[in-house]
Order: sequence, then C-alpha cells, then structure tokens
Amino acid sequence: MALIVQKYGGSSVATLDLISGVVKRAIATKNQGNRVVVVLSAMKGETDRLLSLARQVTLNPDPRELDSILTTGEQISCALFAITAQTLGEKVKSFLGHQAGIHTDDIHTKARIVNIDPSRLITELAKDRIAVVAGFQGVDRLGDVTTLGRGGSDTTAVALAIALKADICEIYTDVDGIYTTDPNICARARKMEKISYEEMLELSSLGAKVMEIRSVELGMNYGLKIHVRHAHSPSQGTIICQEDPSMEKTPVRGVTHSMNEARITLIKVRDQPGVAARILSVVSKADIVVDMIIQNKSVNGEGQFTNFSFTVPSSDYARTKELLEGVLSDLQAERVIGDDNIAKISIVGTGMRNHAGVAAKMFQALALEGININMISTSEIKISCIIEKKYAELAVRVLHEAFELHKAPGD
Amino acid sequence: MALIVQKYGGSSVATLDLISGVVKRAIATKNQGNRVVVVLSAMKGETDRLLSLARQVTLNPDPRELDSILTTGEQISCALFAITAQTLGEKVKSFLGHQAGIHTDDIHTKARIVNIDPSRLITELAKDRIAVVAGFQGVDRLGDVTTLGRGGSDTTAVALAIALKADICEIYTDVDGIYTTDPNICARARKMEKISYEEMLELSSLGAKVMEIRSVELGMNYGLKIHVRHAHSPSQGTIICQEDPSMEKTPVRGVTHSMNEARITLIKVRDQPGVAARILSVVSKADIVVDMIIQNKSVNGEGQFTNFSFTVPSSDYARTKELLEGVLSDLQAERVIGDDNIAKISIVGTGMRNHAGVAAKMFQALALEGININMISTSEIKISCIIEKKYAELAVRVLHEAFELHKAPGD
Repeated sequence: MALIVQKYGGSSVATLDLISGVVKRAIATKNQGNRVVVVLSAMKGETDRLLSLARQVTLNPDPRELDSILTTGEQISCALFAITAQTLGEKVKSFLGHQAGIHTDDIHTKARIVNIDPSRLITELAKDRIAVVAGFQGVDRLGDVTTLGRGGSDTTAVALAIALKADICEIYTDVDGIYTTDPNICARARKMEKISYEEMLELSSLGAKVMEIRSVELGMNYGLKIHVRHAHSPSQGTIICQEDPSMEKTPVRGVTHSMNEARITLIKVRDQPGVAARILSVVSKADIVVDMIIQNKSVNGEGQFTNFSFTVPSSDYARTKELLEGVLSDLQAERVIGDDNIAKISIVGTGMRNHAGVAAKMFQALALEGININMISTSEIKISCIIEKKYAELAVRVLHEAFELHKAPGD
Repeated sequence: MALIVQKYGGSSVATLDLISGVVKRAIATKNQGNRVVVVLSAMKGETDRLLSLARQVTLNPDPRELDSILTTGEQISCALFAITAQTLGEKVKSFLGHQAGIHTDDIHTKARIVNIDPSRLITELAKDRIAVVAGFQGVDRLGDVTTLGRGGSDTTAVALAIALKADICEIYTDVDGIYTTDPNICARARKMEKISYEEMLELSSLGAKVMEIRSVELGMNYGLKIHVRHAHSPSQGTIICQEDPSMEKTPVRGVTHSMNEARITLIKVRDQPGVAARILSVVSKADIVVDMIIQNKSVNGEGQFTNFSFTVPSSDYARTKELLEGVLSDLQAERVIGDDNIAKISIVGTGMRNHAGVAAKMFQALALEGININMISTSEIKISCIIEKKYAELAVRVLHEAFELHKAPGD
C-alpha cells in the first residue's frame, strides 16, 4: 500500500465540475489500494479577487491581515472537495494548515515551514479516509495564519509528502509534463519520462514555469519523487527524481528560452576590486533582480578600464538604466548602454558534466544559422546565450535538432 | 477606563465604505478613553453566497465542511476592518475564533460555547490595540472550526463581553433601538431608552427581530448591559438591562404582532390524559414548531369530547393539516379544521406582574373596535391574542393608544 500526496492547482479546481473531476481521480487512486492525501490551491481567480479586495483599502495591506484574507480561498476549495467526495460515498475530511500541523515562522505572506506534525493526518488515513489539506497556508507559534508565498501549495504538498514519508508526490497541473522544449515553438518537442531535480531547477528558473523552485529543492533534499502530470488526462507525466544512469547518456536534456530579459552594460568602469559589488548593490537596493553577470578582465590588467554587463527583467530595463545614469560618476564609469531586444537561450542537462564539447556544439549550431552570440554564461549543467530577440524561436529549434532531443534517451 | 465590546452586523459591514464608517466609530470610542473589542459578522450577502456554493454540490453538505466554508466570511470582514483601521494609523489586530480563545462543543453549524479563554485578547488590549474578533465561529476540542448558528455573532459578542468582564456590549444594527411597537404601523411608536431582559426575550420571540434570543438570555444570566443601536447614527439606542423600578411603573411596554401564524383545530378529541401529547408528538416529529396551544376542559368533564387548538408557522399550515388528517383515527378525533387568515397580537411588560386588569383592558380595547378574539394565551409578562388578519394593524394601534405607550415612562 503506497502513500500518495496529490496536489491540484487552481486551474484544476476552478469550478465545481472540475472539482468533481479531481475528486474522482483521488478516489480512483485510493481504490487502487493507496492511502491518499490531497493538497489544494484556491479556485482559480479567487486569490486575485481577495487580493484586490484588500488592495481597494490600501496598496500595502498589513501582511498578517492579508494572510488571513488570502487563506480563505484554500479553506473553501478544500471543504468543497470534501463535500463533493462525501456525496460519492467517500470518507473525506478537510484540514486547514493548523489542523494539518503545518508550523511556520511568522514572516507573513512568505512564511517558511519550520516543522510539520502530521499526527492528525496519520490518524485520519488509518481510518481509511482521504485527507484534504489547504495548500499555501500554515500557522505560526502564536496560532496566527501564515501563507507560504508564490507556489506555496506545491511547497505544502512536497513538505507534507516528506513529513508523511510518502512514496510519491503528484503535482497535477494544466500541462501534461516537462518537455524538452516549448512544444508551441518546436513541433518535435518531446515529453520527458524522467528529469533530475537539478535539471528541473535549471529549467524552472529559466522559464518552464511548472513548479516553483523552492519545492523542487525541498524534494531534492529529501529524495522525494515528484510526478508532474495533467489534472484532466490519464497519461503519465514527468517524474522528477534523482539522476540515474539513463539520464547521463544524453548530455543535453532540454532547451529553454526567455524573452523577458534586457541587457545593461556599463562602459569603461575601472577593473578593480569592489566595482561589481558597488554596481550591483545600487540595482538590488531598488529590488531589481539580476540574472546573468559578465565581466571580462581588462586587456591591460587590474586598474585599467573594462565593460561590465548584466541582465535584468525587461520590465525593469528603463528603471535600471536611469538608476545607473544617476550614479555614473560615483561608479567612475563612462556611460550606460543597454538592449532589451534580446532573448536568452539555454540548454540544460546533468550529462553535460561528463560530455566534452557540448558548448562548442551549441555555439556551432547557432553560428551555422548566422545567429550572433551576445553574452555567454555557464553553470555545471547549463549553458545560456543572449542573442538577438528575433532569432529566439529559430535558436530553440536548431538546438533541439542539434542535440537530437526528439529522441528518447533509450533510443 | 471602560471596556466596551462592539458588534457590527452584516449590513453594517456590507461594503468597504461601510466598513470604513464602523472603523471610525470604533476608533472614536477608543479615543474617548475606552478599551475596545469589535466583533463582526460577514459582509452582507457573503454567507448566503457561500451557502449556495456548498448547496450546488449537495443540499445536505457535511456540517463540519460547511462550517469551514461559512467561517471564511467573518475571517475576511475582520481582516478588512483591521487593514482599514491601520490605514488610519490605529493599532488593530484581527482574531479568528480559535485565536480569541472561543472554545465550543463539536456540534457543527450550531455549536455552543463551552468556555472562553480571553488571555490573548487581554494582552492585545493592554498594548493599546483594538481587537477585532470574527463572530459566529469557535473551535472545538480537536481544533476544528465550528459555527454558532443563527445570530451567532451576537452570541460571540455577548459571551466575549462576559468573559472579558466588559462594562457594556453594544450591538450595532440597522435599526436605532427597540420600539414600543413597529413604527411602520403605528406612527406614535416610541424608542425605549431601556428594556428588561425578560421583556426583550418576549419581544424578540414575537417578531421584533433585533437580537437572537440566545444572546439576550446569556446577557441576562450574567447581568451584562446590552446597548442596541444604529451603526450609522450617533443617537442612543435602547439598553437591555435588569428590571428597575422605572420599568415597573408602566404595566405594558410594547405591542407586537405576527402575521405568519396559522391555527389548527382538532374537532372532537377525547378529553383524556395523553391526547395532547399524542397530537403534538406527531407534529414535532415533522420538525414543525408549535407556538400557542389551547385546550379547554370539555364541558362534560374527563372522557368526553373537546376541541384542541394550536398555532404553527403559516408556511407549515398545509403540511400540518395533511399530517393530522392522516392520523385522525389514531387520535380518535372527528376532523381537522384550520385558518391561516389570522394574526397574533401581543402586549409585553414586566410591570404586568403587579398591575391587575391589564388583560381586561386589552380585550376591551379590541372589543371597542369590533375585533373578535379567537384564541388567548398568557405568560407572566405577556398576553397574546389571535385575531382575524385584516385587523392586525388596527389592533396594534388601538393597544398602543390604550396603554399610552407613546409616553415615556417618566412622563
């Protein structure tokens, strides 16, 4: 008898009909001889509705009060799930964060789980019940309701699965798995059967927004298998798990792209210790998130001039440029230039570690199409290039072909 | 420094503008040198919306799950109140039932408060904060959310006021107090400055639906002063308190009427022990609430035939008649007749206890207008008559004049 935690997102419980569908899915899983814990998000649109209600009062509502408002969304979807399951004769109980023993710190709107006491859920499961737990919420030391921030329901599901020593955590969503690249861009994109935690982390931070990074990391730390699959299709999705030999056979596992980046370059800054830190602290103080950072040694060595580049979300492009123009003399830089007509293309794969020549192959494939590379940044299992925006989709297709990603690893 | 519990009903917090109004009222009360605890209902319409959501799934939703859904209404109104108050620079925190220490039994949808541990609220008040408490909800031994049934927010307010040893509990509503009779019917109706708990109990059960009976009873048991007043008017309302000499001066304090009653009469039942019980158990098993019950001795003594009458809500009239027709032979009765073209008129006053002739004066006043009395029923502080429906409003005006209720007791 396996213990399975199933998480259904907001779009999977957006209407009573859809709730009825996921209820049947959970019951079917139980009838196959499993114990089942379900974690739900709020019905799609509800969190936004509640947020806008609070924001009609003030744009900066008190985080503690905001949490109290927002958590009602999951409270309602869970109770509706339980009621629906009961009409089908199933024994189901819903649990709020504090009832499920989800204890967090008191950082409202982005609380971290401190520990989970799953004893009440274990009791309910032993009574042959399905337990439905409100995602996204917990309770602090004082008994105040907290929320876990963006993607919080995924975190709830993964953390609960770990606390319950579940065999697997199933994340039901509106895509049917993780693809080698965006199927809308590349017709040959292939759904992967398995993907390593590390690859998933690189893919999700690069824009394949299926699961929040935090919960993948959490799963990785405890070796919890996570199955990402479609809420309203019976087909298998993609299992996120530890790296295994079959994955290493292929050096590259996926290609992603992001169109929402802009490049900023400071021309002629001094190549001396502390300059990069000074530049970036100006940016981070304005709450602007920097992604790639490139600084080359100056040709003439320390003390001479060099250029310093980095990328920011394109929505922050104008603001970042303005900000730096205001402090040019402090930074002893000549001027700021930039470009938001760019795209970032990345290839990801744990197999890269053991395969030489992956980067060369990537650059060559792009060059063959006449695509110029602006900036390059690499990690152990990822290579990213900044290119001109208009080539983004072409680059994705070219790289997908070059690394033969349409073929399953076993082929 | 007084401690004041203020309760605002759903119509007083129906919109963000209205919430803003009651926030200012609570702050003004605090600025007058008081400590203030606020109890709120859900925004008007919200509870019905949530109920209908659950009922779209099934007409009989599980009470535990239904409570989890319904309590979100107060959770939201309280947080919005707190956020609004904070924008005005006030220190305010909202509290759910379990945070306010409101412990109930586990009878979901109509739980009873078992005890209140107000220690957290006391701590907050000592920090010069206003505490806003979600009405209508509590928590059972297991930590499950419960609701207190109809009028639950009044119960929360009164019970909290008692636990906190508050000086007064203010019930803010959409009427500006308790009147000697319905001002829509009788232009001379007068708002009473004070009314005794007992009188209020008789008036509320008779249709002056300002407060639920349970919370008046609770206030009476602990001698808590309750001030019923208008949420959006500064004028004084009516204080419900212990009987005092000024009340006894006038025998009658109010006139009420109810149009939603129907009379049922069983013709020729045996006048012998157990007959009334047999009749009424048939009715109560069908969950029909009986109000007045009249049985006269048969003219010829025990064992002979008599008629047996009672009143039921007019919405249950047809069903009650049918029900009894089906068991006529069991009851050894000849037939059932009835009439839903009736009204109940009552006069209420603790002073009645010490004044002879009140009943005679009532019957005479009605007779002078040619109003025939169908049934009479009396309690220590109330006399009710069933009359033909078309005379109801006339009867109210006639009795209001006869007992000079337009005059304040001190005049």
